[in-house]
Amino acid sequence: MDFSNRDVVSIRDFGKEDILHVLDQAGKAMPVARGERRSDVLEGKILANLFFEPSTRTRLSFETAMLRLGGSVIGFADASGTSVAKGETLADTVRMADSYADAIVLRHPMEGAAKLAADFSSKPVINAGDGAGQHPTQTLLDLFTIKMEKGEIADNNIVLVGDLKYGRTVHSLTYALSLFGANITCVAPPTLQMPPEIVSHLKGVGGRFNQSESLESVIPGADVLYVTRIQKERFPDPEEYRKVEHAYRIDNALLANAKRSLIVMHPLPRVNEIAPEVDSGPYARYFKQAFYGVPIRMAILSLILGKGEM
Amino acid sequence: MDFSNRDVVSIRDFGKEDILHVLDQAGKAMPVARGERRSDVLEGKILANLFFEPSTRTRLSFETAMLRLGGSVIGFADASGTSVAKGETLADTVRMADSYADAIVLRHPMEGAAKLAADFSSKPVINAGDGAGQHPTQTLLDLFTIKMEKGEIADNNIVLVGDLKYGRTVHSLTYALSLFGANITCVAPPTLQMPPEIVSHLKGVGGRFNQSESLESVIPGADVLYVTRIQKERFPDPEEYRKVEHAYRIDNALLANAKRSLIVMHPLPRVNEIAPEVDSGPYARYFKQAFYGVPIRMAILSLILGKGEM
Amino acid sequence: MDFSNRDVVSIRDFGKEDILHVLDQAGKAMPVARGERRSDVLEGKILANLFFEPSTRTRLSFETAMLRLGGSVIGFADASGTSVAKGETLADTVRMADSYADAIVLRHPMEGAAKLAADFSSKPVINAGDGAGQHPTQTLLDLFTIKMEKGEIADNNIVLVGDLKYGRTVHSLTYALSLFGANITCVAPPTLQMPPEIVSHLKGVGGRFNQSESLESVIPGADVLYVTRIQKERFPDPEEYRKVEHAYRIDNALLANAKRSLIVMHPLPRVNEIAPEVDSGPYARYFKQAFYGVPIRMAILSLILGKGEM
Repeated sequence: MDFSNRDVVSIRDFGKEDILHVLDQAGKAMPVARGERRSDVLEGKILANLFFEPSTRTRLSFETAMLRLGGSVIGFADASGTSVAKGETLADTVRMADSYADAIVLRHPMEGAAKLAADFSSKPVINAGDGAGQHPTQTLLDLFTIKMEKGEIADNNIVLVGDLKYGRTVHSLTYALSLFGANITCVAPPTLQMPPEIVSHLKGVGGRFNQSESLESVIPGADVLYVTRIQKERFPDPEEYRKVEHAYRIDNALLANAKRSLIVMHPLPRVNEIAPEVDSGPYARYFKQAFYGVPIRMAILSLILGKGEM
Repeated sequence: MDFSNRDVVSIRDFGKEDILHVLDQAGKAMPVARGERRSDVLEGKILANLFFEPSTRTRLSFETAMLRLGGSVIGFADASGTSVAKGETLADTVRMADSYADAIVLRHPMEGAAKLAADFSSKPVINAGDGAGQHPTQTLLDLFTIKMEKGEIADNNIVLVGDLKYGRTVHSLTYALSLFGANITCVAPPTLQMPPEIVSHLKGVGGRFNQSESLESVIPGADVLYVTRIQKERFPDPEEYRKVEHAYRIDNALLANAKRSLIVMHPLPRVNEIAPEVDSGPYARYFKQAFYGVPIRMAILSLILGKGEM
Repeated sequence: MDFSNRDVVSIRDFGKEDILHVLDQAGKAMPVARGERRSDVLEGKILANLFFEPSTRTRLSFETAMLRLGGSVIGFADASGTSVAKGETLADTVRMADSYADAIVLRHPMEGAAKLAADFSSKPVINAGDGAGQHPTQTLLDLFTIKMEKGEIADNNIVLVGDLKYGRTVHSLTYALSLFGANITCVAPPTLQMPPEIVSHLKGVGGRFNQSESLESVIPGADVLYVTRIQKERFPDPEEYRKVEHAYRIDNALLANAKRSLIVMHPLPRVNEIAPEVDSGPYARYFKQAFYGVPIRMAILSLILGKGEM
């Protein structure tokens, strides 16, 4: 795949080789991401960060990625101070950014927004989350975390836990993991399990897949525990929420039966899903995972806007 | 006129030669604005963007202009997160920016704010819109658009349509066009026509000027159609608004009788004034016009803060 | 004291020699702060500005300091558009910034927030105000102002006026002045006088200290008049507020009996504490004081992140 000037709308546009190429590039970006080495491969380039809903982590890691490569950033952190408030369409806002920047990062509450933006922009558009849709650089950083922390993606037992029905992150990740032959176990209350279409896709490509309601029973076999937030609003009955909240909370007691090599991931922000006592233990990788967002975004930006050098 | 360190408060401070000098400089800025050539003529310079009300297009085009010339930007995008919320006067906020930056761009809801800011600041102040007052860089980019797209400003038949009473943009543009000997036709409902003082100024300087209520009748002779937004809030009777909204909506049917060389402009954001079908037709120049904001602002910034090199 | 990579949480962590070292460094930063000389000692470094409550002056002066030293800035200007709104803890937000930046500036409404942030971050944290707690760079710029404008800090008669009970600024300043042997006079209504623990600390270190309710009587002997805002909300009875507001308002009549060499300072923003007529008189230094925030923050940033060069 030629990355030069291409849009990054969905992880489904990436084949296995494409993903490996990005992860490889992210590996090369590591010393620059840590600030140990300087790079100016994007000097003179401007990135427009259009965040129609707030996402501090995603926004700031794109900014750091761009700055550490010598580029600069314009944009907005939420829609309140924009012409959208005056009734402007997304297409017109995107055309504006197209005039002022060399690439566009878009975060938008509406599914399909990134595809629409890519259609209206002559510059590359990177989807940084469009509602229930896609967030491909999150998936790439999740894969990069597994690769860096476990050595390989293939053959790991990966447990996804939490809200698997509405959680955009886990849908994309499931798709990508299926390319690499990981074993996936989905743990969720019945009302929040992985949507049937994703399950059947996974089985269709020969993915090894299980479902469970019990987190405790799958912990001993897990290599990667990927935790997501369960939102109270999803439950009509608050009592139901409280049960689930408790059952899927990760703490040291739960992890007592885990393999020594287990890693715990979370796309963050977290609220109560992971007890703070886990932070300083041997399993926590969620803060490192957040850091890996920088080299992944440097990889994407350098491949799209630069000559692939780092 | 010596541009070095001067304020840009009103287009009325510019004579015809001054405007031509800015447009000429903007022409030289074009390759830098498009990102084809790098410039560092403002390296080390800091611009303070003080936006007391949101204006995404103006703010971001000033940022891109500054960044593409090697400078950098500080500031705020709306007044909510500023010391104004704690009761600070505009004069004190401006003095702060004066301490921290090499030039100030001010957007403020109050007419006369830019003049006041210029009085209190030792650094150059650029008015980016002060209520019903002035927005000189908008006027300059409008003129630059006409020059670039039509070759000359003089002798064009320029039709202004929409809210000509409250529309700040068209008042300043009318003044500037009169310097260049363009023919101006104002199309608006009677309650939103061009204010008498502007009309009499125009006639006083020998301007060729007409008024009309019918957009259809003036389209065939138009070289430039400059559309502005009509705000619903201006009409006591919603029924009246609906009539006007429909009568002054630009679509392909209306443009069927236009010259092949007509260009359609709009300061943006638009809401419903121009049908999306016009965007992909031969007449639309409003997105290009938004882009021309970058070279114009580069021209202004380089003349004020730099040595006029590009 | 070795400043390299250290946190700046409280002025109480600074001894007299440390403070003098920072002021000396700020002196060297002056031509760079004024934009007369360029520096790139922090090129490639990224500062995260985490402002959980707005503070335009502090935020923008840190940005200018970083930019004028060749560095760059990421962050947010208020908490509304951050993951805090989604329930994230301060510790997690700080860990994020730790991943993306080389140093963190934190402004937070909660006392103790900066200490907590420093505990959770591997990168240096600079406290830019934490509720009723500390704001050490404000104290340093206050001291720098006195040194630059009066030559020495020692032996000056320094009158602090306004809300001395809740005013964070004056508590830290009092501590620091006591290191330098200044004479301190506190003028406030009885309900807003300096807290007893600060008074007893001051006396314990041999500080020369007085209290008064009458501003008029202490003006003739004053070398420095440090004014702070009295907030209406502090008074249960609005009538009480009105009396105080009037008694402690600085105007030309009050200053008629002042020494020719008196300087008037204020941390800003001001509301009505100082009449605008004072601005253009010989005593006003509060705008210059705001400017001195730039060289002081350049000094701190270059000592912490750089090699102390300027």
